[in-house]
Amino acid sequence: MKYCSNCGNTVSLRIPKGDTHARYICDNCQIIHYQNPRMIVGCLPIWEDKILICKCAIEPRYGLWTLPAGFLENGETVEQGAIRETSEEAGANVTIIRLHALYSLPQVNQVYVIYLAEMRSSHFDAGEESLECKLISVEEIPWDDIAFTAIKFSLKMYVENLKNDKVETYLGHHKR
Amino acid sequence: MKYCSNCGNTVSLRIPKGDTHARYICDNCQIIHYQNPRMIVGCLPIWEDKILICKCAIEPRYGLWTLPAGFLENGETVEQGAIRETSEEAGANVTIIRLHALYSLPQVNQVYVIYLAEMRSSHFDAGEESLECKLISVEEIPWDDIAFTAIKFSLKMYVENLKNDKVETYLGHHKR
Repeated sequence: MKYCSNCGNTVSLRIPKGDTHARYICDNCQIIHYQNPRMIVGCLPIWEDKILICKCAIEPRYGLWTLPAGFLENGETVEQGAIRETSEEAGANVTIIRLHALYSLPQVNQVYVIYLAEMRSSHFDAGEESLECKLISVEEIPWDDIAFTAIKFSLKMYVENLKNDKVETYLGHHKR
Repeated sequence: MKYCSNCGNTVSLRIPKGDTHARYICDNCQIIHYQNPRMIVGCLPIWEDKILICKCAIEPRYGLWTLPAGFLENGETVEQGAIRETSEEAGANVTIIRLHALYSLPQVNQVYVIYLAEMRSSHFDAGEESLECKLISVEEIPWDDIAFTAIKFSLKMYVENLKNDKVETYLGHHKR
């Protein structure tokens, strides 16, 4: 950030009075520009005993596997965002079962929110950001070709959960 | 947003190619400025059979009761943010038990993330944003004087949970 989005003047990075963090503050209108982590929301879609996974069509993870997920938009609930991303990226209509994983990436100011969701039918269809989608068994999870640590965590905890069958939301974060 | 934070030129609100949402795009450098919901993270701190609540010292909720919570900062995990806010606003050191509630406010582009947390001692101390803090029993919850719908939801679900004692993360959103 170099310029104020409100008045177009230059900004300076300094700690506002009474604050503990440095913020971009406009040298002219004095507006404080707060910057906060963004949420990436999605689903772990289930059909019978299979999981729906997607092959990334976008760099830098082109060709690696992931779950349908993307940035939460203004004006939607977290659940609406997760259902929308699952429809856009995998062409699947899902019903949310429960929150499955909350995973922080403090290095890049991102938080993943992944729901366990039931597909309403076996239908799916790769969207523009996916090369292909497929239903796989737990044994077929391509552990060495998963695109993101948050998705690997979500899949790992899902497999873990199958063993004990507890209703649980898993908390994780990327180690520095 | 009126000006580009990268180059200081004017921005226009339009839908980028391949996108579905209108974004602020710089008329000069063409940067797309995405705007996304912010997370408010905090705790429902427990000491023995009591809950720690805080009286807001800040408008527009001055004098109403809430739980310690605030905006998640860049560079921290959601859990770190919730523990920090509990320390700053209520002077309490807590250990997180589990994720208690995820509550969306799509009208104002906010998502609350509230953890159930155990106080490490009975010590607490109102911070600058609190007029006072106190430990109360479930029967003493001031239902008519709670500052935020997300906090009311978190407290209500906590009381609900005491009856069935399930390990559960509650999902909610503010109705339009």
